[in-house]
Amino acid sequence: MSGGSHFLQIPGPTNVPDRVLRAISYPTIDHRGAEFADLGRAALDGLRSVVRTEGDVVLYPASGTGAWEAALVNTLSPGDRVLMFETGHFGTLWAGVAHDLGLEVTLVPGDWRSGPDPEELERRLREDTEHLIKAVAIVHNETSTGVTSRLPHLRAAMDRAHHPALLLVDTISSLGSVDYRHDEWGVDVTVGCSQKGLMLPPGLSFNAISPKAREAAHRASLNRSYWDWAPMLEAGTKGFFPYTPATNLLYGLKEAVAMLHEEGLDSVYARHRRHAEATRRAVGTWGFETQCRVPEEHSPVLTAVVMPDGQDADALRAAILSHFDISLGAGLSRLSGRVFRIGHLGSLNDAALLGTLAGVEAGLRVAGISHRSGGVTAALEYLADTATPS
Amino acid sequence: MSGGSHFLQIPGPTNVPDRVLRAISYPTIDHRGAEFADLGRAALDGLRSVVRTEGDVVLYPASGTGAWEAALVNTLSPGDRVLMFETGHFGTLWAGVAHDLGLEVTLVPGDWRSGPDPEELERRLREDTEHLIKAVAIVHNETSTGVTSRLPHLRAAMDRAHHPALLLVDTISSLGSVDYRHDEWGVDVTVGCSQKGLMLPPGLSFNAISPKAREAAHRASLNRSYWDWAPMLEAGTKGFFPYTPATNLLYGLKEAVAMLHEEGLDSVYARHRRHAEATRRAVGTWGFETQCRVPEEHSPVLTAVVMPDGQDADALRAAILSHFDISLGAGLSRLSGRVFRIGHLGSLNDAALLGTLAGVEAGLRVAGISHRSGGVTAALEYLADTATPS
Amino acid sequence: MSGGSHFLQIPGPTNVPDRVLRAISYPTIDHRGAEFADLGRAALDGLRSVVRTEGDVVLYPASGTGAWEAALVNTLSPGDRVLMFETGHFGTLWAGVAHDLGLEVTLVPGDWRSGPDPEELERRLREDTEHLIKAVAIVHNETSTGVTSRLPHLRAAMDRAHHPALLLVDTISSLGSVDYRHDEWGVDVTVGCSQKGLMLPPGLSFNAISPKAREAAHRASLNRSYWDWAPMLEAGTKGFFPYTPATNLLYGLKEAVAMLHEEGLDSVYARHRRHAEATRRAVGTWGFETQCRVPEEHSPVLTAVVMPDGQDADALRAAILSHFDISLGAGLSRLSGRVFRIGHLGSLNDAALLGTLAGVEAGLRVAGISHRSGGVTAALEYLADTATPS
Amino acid sequence: MSGGSHFLQIPGPTNVPDRVLRAISYPTIDHRGAEFADLGRAALDGLRSVVRTEGDVVLYPASGTGAWEAALVNTLSPGDRVLMFETGHFGTLWAGVAHDLGLEVTLVPGDWRSGPDPEELERRLREDTEHLIKAVAIVHNETSTGVTSRLPHLRAAMDRAHHPALLLVDTISSLGSVDYRHDEWGVDVTVGCSQKGLMLPPGLSFNAISPKAREAAHRASLNRSYWDWAPMLEAGTKGFFPYTPATNLLYGLKEAVAMLHEEGLDSVYARHRRHAEATRRAVGTWGFETQCRVPEEHSPVLTAVVMPDGQDADALRAAILSHFDISLGAGLSRLSGRVFRIGHLGSLNDAALLGTLAGVEAGLRVAGISHRSGGVTAALEYLADTATPS
Repeated sequence: MSGGSHFLQIPGPTNVPDRVLRAISYPTIDHRGAEFADLGRAALDGLRSVVRTEGDVVLYPASGTGAWEAALVNTLSPGDRVLMFETGHFGTLWAGVAHDLGLEVTLVPGDWRSGPDPEELERRLREDTEHLIKAVAIVHNETSTGVTSRLPHLRAAMDRAHHPALLLVDTISSLGSVDYRHDEWGVDVTVGCSQKGLMLPPGLSFNAISPKAREAAHRASLNRSYWDWAPMLEAGTKGFFPYTPATNLLYGLKEAVAMLHEEGLDSVYARHRRHAEATRRAVGTWGFETQCRVPEEHSPVLTAVVMPDGQDADALRAAILSHFDISLGAGLSRLSGRVFRIGHLGSLNDAALLGTLAGVEAGLRVAGISHRSGGVTAALEYLADTATPS
Repeated sequence: MSGGSHFLQIPGPTNVPDRVLRAISYPTIDHRGAEFADLGRAALDGLRSVVRTEGDVVLYPASGTGAWEAALVNTLSPGDRVLMFETGHFGTLWAGVAHDLGLEVTLVPGDWRSGPDPEELERRLREDTEHLIKAVAIVHNETSTGVTSRLPHLRAAMDRAHHPALLLVDTISSLGSVDYRHDEWGVDVTVGCSQKGLMLPPGLSFNAISPKAREAAHRASLNRSYWDWAPMLEAGTKGFFPYTPATNLLYGLKEAVAMLHEEGLDSVYARHRRHAEATRRAVGTWGFETQCRVPEEHSPVLTAVVMPDGQDADALRAAILSHFDISLGAGLSRLSGRVFRIGHLGSLNDAALLGTLAGVEAGLRVAGISHRSGGVTAALEYLADTATPS
Repeated sequence: MSGGSHFLQIPGPTNVPDRVLRAISYPTIDHRGAEFADLGRAALDGLRSVVRTEGDVVLYPASGTGAWEAALVNTLSPGDRVLMFETGHFGTLWAGVAHDLGLEVTLVPGDWRSGPDPEELERRLREDTEHLIKAVAIVHNETSTGVTSRLPHLRAAMDRAHHPALLLVDTISSLGSVDYRHDEWGVDVTVGCSQKGLMLPPGLSFNAISPKAREAAHRASLNRSYWDWAPMLEAGTKGFFPYTPATNLLYGLKEAVAMLHEEGLDSVYARHRRHAEATRRAVGTWGFETQCRVPEEHSPVLTAVVMPDGQDADALRAAILSHFDISLGAGLSRLSGRVFRIGHLGSLNDAALLGTLAGVEAGLRVAGISHRSGGVTAALEYLADTATPS
Repeated sequence: MSGGSHFLQIPGPTNVPDRVLRAISYPTIDHRGAEFADLGRAALDGLRSVVRTEGDVVLYPASGTGAWEAALVNTLSPGDRVLMFETGHFGTLWAGVAHDLGLEVTLVPGDWRSGPDPEELERRLREDTEHLIKAVAIVHNETSTGVTSRLPHLRAAMDRAHHPALLLVDTISSLGSVDYRHDEWGVDVTVGCSQKGLMLPPGLSFNAISPKAREAAHRASLNRSYWDWAPMLEAGTKGFFPYTPATNLLYGLKEAVAMLHEEGLDSVYARHRRHAEATRRAVGTWGFETQCRVPEEHSPVLTAVVMPDGQDADALRAAILSHFDISLGAGLSRLSGRVFRIGHLGSLNDAALLGTLAGVEAGLRVAGISHRSGGVTAALEYLADTATPS
């Protein structure tokens, strides 16, 4: 306890706005009543508006990991081949889920510093002349590395290859903070969840579903019950759910979507791009590298910073947490101890970002890590030069 | 809008106490940090104390339906036989889940007015000399009928039959309101969730796991990923979870368990038995029957009331909702329109129960349904005669 | 701790709706900023709409007692004569405030069972041919007795007497639950506060001010600073206050007024009259008398029940509180131990009123107080026969 | 709306911690019941612990302005002389209150850049050989200028002069953030309120009272009713109040005091001194002056910054608010447009302070005001060099 509010600057869960926290504290209501139906419809319509689809959405009381599973079990059959990409920790984890469910996974190796290569995707699909690959699964924003996949280019690659595989996209850490267009980009299943750009606590996840994916679901024979789209879609048309939904998080979802539209989705996305650039200017001034090495793929929602050789990222994070009450993201699996991650997604304004960066700069000083000072100054000058009045 | 607070007297989700609502509005924290670990451990320990087990518990960000699935996929293999009971709507639904997952279900027919018969259970297990039945699945409190299974007798029947089947028990609508003893009663997997006797919003569910069930999990070959106990148990020893947990509901769980222990579990159970008796006295005075026909099996947490022939239970419920702002439970599937259900589980005191019963009696009058008046008087006299000062 | 929510059925503070409780938990804002100005104007306009005035309103961070003082110090000078009525505890207390501030009080004696008599008022004013009486102060609803003064008749009496005294009215326990019309009834200063019919926690009070009262304020020479209308009125035109206002209660006020208008003021008043009649039917069935002895003056917002001789009202209240978690109002000063008061003001619906009455009836039984049973039945039958669907 | 939470960096009301906001949303309870008595006592004891007195405390549902009035009307009689100091806007306002109440005020002129001079105080008291001065009134922390009076020196001056005047101290913006000792420093009446260092919304204020002040109250003849200590002190011994207290703010007070003691009062004071020094380093780097010109009198809780000639402080504040969502304090009365004030009191951590200072530095750039960059860097380096781990 040392005054003030904790700065939760991990790349999700994010700082939940107090409007949303209050919304989830509304009294729980009858999930079979007319009042609930209005809420259920509003929740599903809200998701549609953020995912940018006119199509189907199903919403689970579950973590994002559950929606990963849902995307697979509803569209695929035992032994089906899925093309996945080792973009980092989460791309690898999703491949593990697919494997556990009895699918054949081709995991395209990656360097954890860049997104899937559209040319490699095209080449691999062209080589699959028998169309054994039933689905291509891509993580939109790889939360472990701060790399955002170039989805429109990847979609174009699939189209050029004239390959019928479904396109499954994980938007877990991007949705609501990074531009995303389910329908326009021809995504078949979008996987998303509540606790990142949607500014909610964890506990909700969802799939947006293209007609082609829905068609595939009729043939898919992996066992499914909880994740089954069919009863969800049927009940959903009336705003209901086949089993008890997470009512109070739905209140929050409705409020969070309202907040996103009050600001305007395009403004929200611009805010995150601007915060990411400010963060990179601080990182560059300090003399550090970002884990992402492809300029067009820098994530708008988090920045993974590579520590100088011999320095322990976790010791730095611990120093920043204990001295300055700021949580940062750890390096995961192979990046453990080598990077730390600054989350700048969800509900965040310039002052809080600058407070975070100042805390990191102060932490570098406390931890005795050699760096150039002035990172925050660089960030604030960039923000000042690009600020617009409300 | 007509003043006052809604009376949510369905048999779950229940009226969430304001202490719990405030708890779930705490700021979301880093699910990989030390503060979270304390919360995670407290949540799991709290569940253990209510389930009354010294053993393992896994907790999912999911509805109770998910914990049904978890109990099955972690212990069984494709084609395994499960003995289940048609106690009502939910017993039948659980059997459907088992079927969808590729299990062979033997559903013992029932009359929807009584619990599983211990003698029939013993007979069926004795007949299964080859031990093809791998699990017996029982709903502790059948929420659609207001019947509570006599678990100790059913356990004794299994023991007398010397049958090695696992005992899986759904405590979804009983836990936290009806006496339950996972270890003492030799249950192998307990299935529970948040939104009933635990007084939380929906969104959490769990399994309590006996050593025998854990052993079975090593051999069970149904596909599993999200529901897999192994990574849950491993992470749980440190208070963590293999994927993002529903942090804010965990705050609520910790608070709700604290409330149950402040009152004392035995006092809580006695309160619900007393409320159930008061409710039955009102129902009897009105001249109606309960759906439960076995005196020892009357549920402490809800009372399903059978309408006189020719009267529509749903019309009555609608009248009570629109005139008196009280939600009651509908009759489900084959009981649709023929019963209404009064929930008296979770957080409830005498005055609110009496307000509910008075609202029902007033509703009968509004709806023009023939009944004897004085139900509330009978209930309040019973409550007065059995009340103890705080 | 015994489950459920406390029934706060004292005649104020009342059960604050959860919408209002959430509103008062909004983050505090700059009381000199533009966002605040909108809130301040909304709060003042909201009060105007409930008081039914087109004129001036000033709002204090203070209890109702403060607004009593404000009404006096802004309109009167040392030694001025005020005509007040001994309607009960609060009428007497207000006279004490006037006396403490250096005014000459004429306190018309009363029986604590009826409101001011219009004829006596007229007579006293006619006798005051020199117009020494500068103000007539009336409590609209005497909270200690459950008697509502007949304001239109009292106003008419003043008019008939052609007396220029100001009319000061305390609406502390009536406003927002009982029909009231500042402008139409020619009231000069209305005194009100937050924690009764306005459904807020305590901490706000106000004066509504006629042009005649404002004029009087220019001549009034009692010392005043905190309560001075002039700087309040000046700042109020822009939505501001001369000293720091109780920001978070203002959020609640805005929400509470919105709730009153969602239901409709006339519907709110009708709801309270209906609840009062139901309560009296219960009281009559039990065989008890109300403290109010004038049929046209029964309060819509509370019922003071006279105990049979030899019975202690406080012992009954204690039994009801400890056994049934219901707070009732005590008898005050000369009524101590002889009456108990059932509050039915503010946010209340039929089911909660019936739960309260059932708790009282159960309490009579627990306390061994002789009564006829069936009070709740009488109340619910009346409510059923007068209920309208939402 | 542009994401993130508003930075309320005015010198009060301050950012209310979410723990306190949740506390004030507890259900309102019976202010005459046993549960309330515990709360009332806890609130009064909590205030005592922060004011550091073993003596009497009275707590009003009112703003700090009301507690100013209470301090005067309880201790003084019409025409009594009070020695006050023109330390700034608030010192002058308090003198105005005294004047409005009929006291004779001697307002010692000041330059709005320093606190009361102990030598001048001594001299003035020595000159008052007839002891016409009945009270010396001092603002501990002048919120309009960022100057903290040296109370121990001022007390010593009074003692040296052997003058019997009462010492009244306004701790409105200091209490809970600046070291203060009612008993040790021989203060007779301490005036304080809720919305500054006590981290509450506005709406509570109080007096701490020495035995000498209580004695004076017996002789004091200014009219008083609402502010009268006597009934407050009598009811307070049992945890009650003579009129309805602001129950929900009392919940918050209890919680806020708990938070102060969890951190430790001395740690809290050190945190504010450290934040003030960091702020002055930023201000100095930018090339600006503070309004306070006496090094030993720099306020730990706010810094008033003097604008370069020809620059409009309000235009800068407007730019910072509209571009960076940070509220700063305006210059008041004669300082209007010439200073802006950075509040760093109440609940604040290093990261939020640095975010604020970064926002100010960015705002200077946006507004085109000539300054040296690097202010935030200077502040963060100071904070890093003085940080201690939690």
